[in-house]
Amino acid sequence: MSASIRLVIDCPDQVGLVAAVSEFLAAQSVNILEASHHTDQHLNRFFMRHEIEADSVALDINELREAFAKVAAKYDMEWSLRHSSEKRKVALLASHESHCLNDVLHRWHSGELYCDIPCIIANHEAMREYASWYKVPFHYIDFSDKPTAFAKIDELLSHYDIDLTVLARFMQIIPEAMCQKHAGKIINIHHSFLPSFAGAKPYQQAYDRGVKLIGATCHYVTSDLDEGPIIEQEVMRISHSDSAQDMVRKGKRCEVNALANGIRYHLEDRVIICQHKTVVFD
Amino acid sequence: MSASIRLVIDCPDQVGLVAAVSEFLAAQSVNILEASHHTDQHLNRFFMRHEIEADSVALDINELREAFAKVAAKYDMEWSLRHSSEKRKVALLASHESHCLNDVLHRWHSGELYCDIPCIIANHEAMREYASWYKVPFHYIDFSDKPTAFAKIDELLSHYDIDLTVLARFMQIIPEAMCQKHAGKIINIHHSFLPSFAGAKPYQQAYDRGVKLIGATCHYVTSDLDEGPIIEQEVMRISHSDSAQDMVRKGKRCEVNALANGIRYHLEDRVIICQHKTVVFD
Amino acid sequence: MSASIRLVIDCPDQVGLVAAVSEFLAAQSVNILEASHHTDQHLNRFFMRHEIEADSVALDINELREAFAKVAAKYDMEWSLRHSSEKRKVALLASHESHCLNDVLHRWHSGELYCDIPCIIANHEAMREYASWYKVPFHYIDFSDKPTAFAKIDELLSHYDIDLTVLARFMQIIPEAMCQKHAGKIINIHHSFLPSFAGAKPYQQAYDRGVKLIGATCHYVTSDLDEGPIIEQEVMRISHSDSAQDMVRKGKRCEVNALANGIRYHLEDRVIICQHKTVVFD
Amino acid sequence: MSASIRLVIDCPDQVGLVAAVSEFLAAQSVNILEASHHTDQHLNRFFMRHEIEADSVALDINELREAFAKVAAKYDMEWSLRHSSEKRKVALLASHESHCLNDVLHRWHSGELYCDIPCIIANHEAMREYASWYKVPFHYIDFSDKPTAFAKIDELLSHYDIDLTVLARFMQIIPEAMCQKHAGKIINIHHSFLPSFAGAKPYQQAYDRGVKLIGATCHYVTSDLDEGPIIEQEVMRISHSDSAQDMVRKGKRCEVNALANGIRYHLEDRVIICQHKTVVFD
Repeated sequence: MSASIRLVIDCPDQVGLVAAVSEFLAAQSVNILEASHHTDQHLNRFFMRHEIEADSVALDINELREAFAKVAAKYDMEWSLRHSSEKRKVALLASHESHCLNDVLHRWHSGELYCDIPCIIANHEAMREYASWYKVPFHYIDFSDKPTAFAKIDELLSHYDIDLTVLARFMQIIPEAMCQKHAGKIINIHHSFLPSFAGAKPYQQAYDRGVKLIGATCHYVTSDLDEGPIIEQEVMRISHSDSAQDMVRKGKRCEVNALANGIRYHLEDRVIICQHKTVVFD
Repeated sequence: MSASIRLVIDCPDQVGLVAAVSEFLAAQSVNILEASHHTDQHLNRFFMRHEIEADSVALDINELREAFAKVAAKYDMEWSLRHSSEKRKVALLASHESHCLNDVLHRWHSGELYCDIPCIIANHEAMREYASWYKVPFHYIDFSDKPTAFAKIDELLSHYDIDLTVLARFMQIIPEAMCQKHAGKIINIHHSFLPSFAGAKPYQQAYDRGVKLIGATCHYVTSDLDEGPIIEQEVMRISHSDSAQDMVRKGKRCEVNALANGIRYHLEDRVIICQHKTVVFD
Repeated sequence: MSASIRLVIDCPDQVGLVAAVSEFLAAQSVNILEASHHTDQHLNRFFMRHEIEADSVALDINELREAFAKVAAKYDMEWSLRHSSEKRKVALLASHESHCLNDVLHRWHSGELYCDIPCIIANHEAMREYASWYKVPFHYIDFSDKPTAFAKIDELLSHYDIDLTVLARFMQIIPEAMCQKHAGKIINIHHSFLPSFAGAKPYQQAYDRGVKLIGATCHYVTSDLDEGPIIEQEVMRISHSDSAQDMVRKGKRCEVNALANGIRYHLEDRVIICQHKTVVFD
Repeated sequence: MSASIRLVIDCPDQVGLVAAVSEFLAAQSVNILEASHHTDQHLNRFFMRHEIEADSVALDINELREAFAKVAAKYDMEWSLRHSSEKRKVALLASHESHCLNDVLHRWHSGELYCDIPCIIANHEAMREYASWYKVPFHYIDFSDKPTAFAKIDELLSHYDIDLTVLARFMQIIPEAMCQKHAGKIINIHHSFLPSFAGAKPYQQAYDRGVKLIGATCHYVTSDLDEGPIIEQEVMRISHSDSAQDMVRKGKRCEVNALANGIRYHLEDRVIICQHKTVVFD
């Protein structure tokens, strides 16, 4: 795929917005590859994403930003302009389950997830072998003292200048201060179809309730546990004959797919957080 | 499909059960069309369903019951033996939404749901036209006084000798006494993926939470609202661009399909209630 | 939902298209409810659909058409501008299976499908009762002589000034001349996942091949049997234990849902035919 | 999960079969964990699978085989009795795409797929790193001369005493003689929903046809290309906006899941090949 520039806009809705943006883009003679709009009529808010062929843009990206800033100011826009070749730095946090970690690493390695992964942090040594296979620095964190552990994690995120933290079945509750500091920059995969079965042991909860479908939810982390804005969900059919073990196996499939989509949408600037919900231009 | 006899068994698990039943069936020289087993290892309970070609059974069904009663007594079985030609009497309760009612009636009329439908009961007159099209007696119940309304409904269920009551988007909470009297004989369709969004206005709840899939749940009614044993669930993908109206439209599809499967499983003796869960031999 | 005006455009791709349309719309001060674009880079062709709040448009629709015609001419656009309140006239053609017919009629009656249904045409008398329930004129056509039968059908389509013909399991091959005359205006539901199992008895073909999923395909009719542009497809899981009868039952669900979506997309001007494929702005 | 013994039977249908097997099992006082039956009424053939708790079996497995052989002979059964701890030897054949290979290796390494993987064979060097990570011997085969290449592969399969060969996107047509020699012992993943888009470049074929769902098919390899008995199929929704590249990404998900299920069903003795179809007791 050829390189592109992504223009993402979130602003109060009003007449003329689309025309103003389109005129701006036409004046630059750019070639639009994808364009998506959404108006939230309850919130009277407008969301827009353009993907522009990079080669069709005469200005460099900073000049383009400067030029667009005037349009943006007029309409009170929150906005970003990013070149698709810009690699964001993603930290993976894991515990003792490897399926999400392995899946993210493989998709990254094969080019499906476009980013850098400068570190893997885990509270179990078992994940070290994955890190070493993929030649990613590995940091084991001792969780016997949680505040210290999280302080170390935060230090690592700063050290590596991390843009996005992915909880790949990390299984630890992120402290409120860290949630706020990294708002919109921590993605979790929860192994249930939220809001069903929030909290601990969701497969056991699902087994006990006797549901006929299980699922997984990829969401941004906020200080309300399992209440953050949902990016993606997946489900699979189960029956009375599925043991807890079968449910775990089937659920893993939901987890890896929901997480992979969630990360990809984030990295491709396809997600806009709007209060406690998301707009996803997939 | 040729006529069949269904033998359904629920009993404490022990060695020799399957052999005892199989020997009994072999001694009758019957032709087994379907056989399903399940052992719940937590509850140490065994569930079994056979579907036997009716023409291969030499005894009449009462003789067969008598003969089987000896096996059943030995193993402390709860059991039923039913001829597939036996039509159960199903009452449909509705309110002002027609999609579930229309769907059940069409499947019944086209032979997919094998039963009698001796009456439709509703708290809105709007459903009368469906009843008259399908030539089913219609009873409008005034709900200005709920206890009186439910007393009338219960009277009608007795009058028509109803075996199964289907709440086809009835939207009224069944009184506890009625739940207990008809335990395992009232099926509801709830328009959410339970346990998410129990109670009122589930589509609005789903919209507010920002989930990426919506669903419907077919379950037996118990005195715990929306907590009864689940028979079937369906989901559909939605996105930020789906309005509440779109969600209702997509949700209807989940509702009619989950309800139709739930009723069919019940009528074909495919469901065994086990505490607050179900075994469904689909 | 409030009334809207839909502007649908299909033209050669070039820079400035979106800006020209957006400027035009902004100059009219209209409120855009939905906007979708697509560029087919192989064909170098651009597709666009806007849904505009009708109340926000000062001009009447003919004045709006006149005004837009100048933009359209400049960019060599094929385009349409249609008010959402305009009801298209849909003819339903059926045979002896009622599930698609009943489903379309119910969705129409409950307001999900916005159109007029001025006639039902069938080669079996069995569908007459559905027509009379829904108070739609019914025409039985004797198919002992096919050319005469199709001549009568074509006459009826003219007589009722039909905009869209829906083959609701009609099971007759439409003559080439009729396909061409009504190109893009006849929708069929084929009971397989095309291109698998084109032609007769698709469920039997699926059973014989031993596939693990069955499906249905809603497509425009062309003179190449089962080769027309696909609008929508649905699938369901099956297993070795599903008889041909079970497959028919499960398949019906795919058929009614694919057909309902296909018709709705067409009526809401969400489909653009592009050679032998479709762009569907769902 | 505790160890189990799997008894799989395929024989002409007749009365008394189930009783004979059940009596045999009851006489051994075994604890049945799972039991599944299927009768193919067209072929008049009966299929049965029991999973028995190993600890409940007094005899060793050879004694059990000897004892059962008498029952089997009486009913002309093809049968197998296998202990769940028995590890089959699986060879993975790959080319230059890593997603299936990585997925199978991770599921094997994490215990989801219970087998030995004594070798990986590929016609590209790129897969060597996966082999070395998982410490599996890697054999590069030069395909400039195909007959020589396949002779080497067959030699390796003999050398490693392989029970099952998995074509993890191997992309080479297996010679007829090799198909026949290893009948029922080679599993392929084809990247389309068969019988649609057999042969080369199925995603391109799907793109060209404009289908709305793409899929993958896991099947046994026979000398009829892409015509072997299907074990599992998966599909995913696509739209006009999905490029060929998007389809490849979505399709990979279908491929890995269909392949993983297919291998697992085979290794757990859940598949019985019946002419050109399968019975899968999932």
